[in-house]
This record gives sequence, C-alpha cells and structure tokens, in this order.
Amino acid sequence: MKKPEISRPTLGRIPLYLKYLRSLPPNTESISATAIAAGLGLGDVQVRKDLGILCGSGKPKTGYVRLELIESLESYLECKNGGAVIVGGGQLGKALLDYRGFETFGISVLAAFDKRTAKAESSAKGKPILPVETLPSFCENYEVNLGIIAVPAESAQEACNLLYDSGIRAMWCFAPCQLYKPADAVIQYENLALSLAHLKMQVNQL
Amino acid sequence: MKKPEISRPTLGRIPLYLKYLRSLPPNTESISATAIAAGLGLGDVQVRKDLGILCGSGKPKTGYVRLELIESLESYLECKNGGAVIVGGGQLGKALLDYRGFETFGISVLAAFDKRTAKAESSAKGKPILPVETLPSFCENYEVNLGIIAVPAESAQEACNLLYDSGIRAMWCFAPCQLYKPADAVIQYENLALSLAHLKMQVNQL
Repeated sequence: MKKPEISRPTLGRIPLYLKYLRSLPPNTESISATAIAAGLGLGDVQVRKDLGILCGSGKPKTGYVRLELIESLESYLECKNGGAVIVGGGQLGKALLDYRGFETFGISVLAAFDKRTAKAESSAKGKPILPVETLPSFCENYEVNLGIIAVPAESAQEACNLLYDSGIRAMWCFAPCQLYKPADAVIQYENLALSLAHLKMQVNQL
Repeated sequence: MKKPEISRPTLGRIPLYLKYLRSLPPNTESISATAIAAGLGLGDVQVRKDLGILCGSGKPKTGYVRLELIESLESYLECKNGGAVIVGGGQLGKALLDYRGFETFGISVLAAFDKRTAKAESSAKGKPILPVETLPSFCENYEVNLGIIAVPAESAQEACNLLYDSGIRAMWCFAPCQLYKPADAVIQYENLALSLAHLKMQVNQL
C-alpha cells in the first residue's frame, strides 16, 4: 500500500504519538483522538486530522484500538528496505553517524565513507567509517536509499556524483553549495549557517 | 540605524552577492542589478527586490556603486557586538564549533562548554572547549548573544536555563525536545532527524 503524503509537521508528530501511546497502562485497549490531544497538550482538531490521514478515522465513542494505532504509526515510519550512508568522516560526518535521534523516525545510518580513510575504522559508538572507494560495493550489498553529504563545499559535487552512481537518488547536503543533479534525484539542503544567521537576524530585531 | 527585516531566502543570497561583487575586476566602478542577476543566474526581479530592501534602489542607467554596495551588504551581516557559544562539547558541539560556514554570515562561534570538561581544552581547529561552570563569567567578559544547545534532550532544559541566566536571549536547539522558556527568549529548533525523515518520505513517493 502506498503511504499517504503527509506534511512535515504531521511527520514530526508521529514520534510524539507513538511515545504517548506506548506509555499508557497496558490494559488501555482503546483511546480517542481527544484523549491523545489532551495527553500531549495538542489541539483536538490537529490530532484528529493527523490520525485521520495516517490511520483512518476511529470508531465512534471508543476511538482507536491502541495496539492497532501503534502498529499503523510504526509502519508509517518503517523503512523495510534501506538505510542511509554518509560521505565525509570528519567531525560533522561522525556526529551524524552517531546521532541517536534518527532512530526516532526509523532511520538507520549504516556507515560513513571518507577519502582519508585507508582501512575500516570505527566511530565513538562503534559504527563503521570506511574508505570512500568501497561505497559502490557497500551499496550493492546493503539496501541504501539515502545519502548524506558531509564534506566541504569543494568536494560536494564529487560526493553527489558518487552517491548517484551507486544508485542513491535522495541526498541530504550539508555543504553550502548548489549541486548539479540528474532529474531523477532529490537533494535536500541543510544550510546550518543560514539557520544561525536567521536566528541572529531575529535577535537584532529584539 | 535599525536594519530592515528580510526573509530567510534574501538573507541566504547576501553571501552570494558579496562573493560575486568581490570577484569583479577592481576597476568595476558600478554595476546594475540586471548584471548581477545575469552573473549569478538569478532572476532579475528577485535581485532588484533584494538589493532594493538591503541597499535602496540604484541609480538609473549605472546602477550601484560597487564598493558602496559591498559595504552595505557587509554591514548587514556584521554583528559588531557579539558572537555565539555552544553548550555541549560532544561530537555535534565540536563539529559546530569548527564549522567554517558560519563566517560567511559574519558569525563567530567563540567557544563550547561541556560539563565533562574539567580544564580548558582545544578543538581540532584550536577553539576553546571549557568547563560549563565558566559559561556565566565567559558571557560577562565577552559579548555573546547567541547560544547553541548541542546536548542530549535530557540535558537541554538545563542548558537553556544556564544560557538564559547568563544573559543570552536567542538559542538554537539541536536536541529533539520542547523547551520551557521565558517570554523574552527566542528558541529556534533544528530537528535533524525530522529533516532526514522528511527526505525519506519524499523518496518513498518516488
């Protein structure tokens, strides 16, 4: 079944719903959208809308069967076929490799690849940092569908090409640059400097 | 003079304009918005609008005096009174401390503070990592107006309180959590996991 398209804010609330539903006493069989909204301090209409898109509407009076709701929210985040790899094993690459928050959304970051790495190394949390030449064969052996570009701007295009040639069509780029990409690839830019500058601008207005 | 309020995309283009204007031959005295747009592959209307907000309108026919334009764009990014500090000296904190991109927007990240640090240390690029107890006195001695929270979610509120008590009113939080804050503080959240999940969702639709 193709998953429905949802907004970024709705996506961001799925882990909240899951955490709340899992925290309820085990004998809680069903729960209404209204009760979930109250428990999380969210708007009733918003929760009703989110759950409607993700899991259909609940039953009148009783609402949703708790375990079914958990299962369908989990299946939304689940990515049975694939994880992410990072190009760049510097400080940013290592920080992303070991960042725990991705698991909240069911994403596994499998390994980082670096051109300065001659043989397999480990991150602080024991994840592999591998020579960049081994990226294509890694992507053949594992299901990988996300590529993270964590190299300086001057190497970012090379990293993008390598990921594309290894079959990856979705990339998340931390380098402050604009990449040339084939039409069937998706690139999402993460401009950290711009985010901080935007905050600074708000401060200047205070 | 109070700086005009500008959008995030306009802010993001200032470094592009500066780089282009600085790259022109030294004898280029004036330049039109149209020529800048062509040089950068941007829309004419957009460039005209950006420069209009930031530097007023150019002169008919000749456009802007190049050096004046550079000066007024630079002054926009300039933050004469203040830099940023980071709470959290783990991998993410260190990566942000040494990240070069912030300078593009005239932002200095001065130091990171960590509770596991007993005496002053240095990052890979020689920036200070200091004991967290020294944050309040650091903020008294240096002009600091941005605080970056790069600790796990369970320590983020503590970090936020410490920054606030040290006089910082603008914070950028990388921990996946919601912070309680006084009304006069601004908090901008950077949810890396949500960004990656959002990209994954787009891939699932491919």
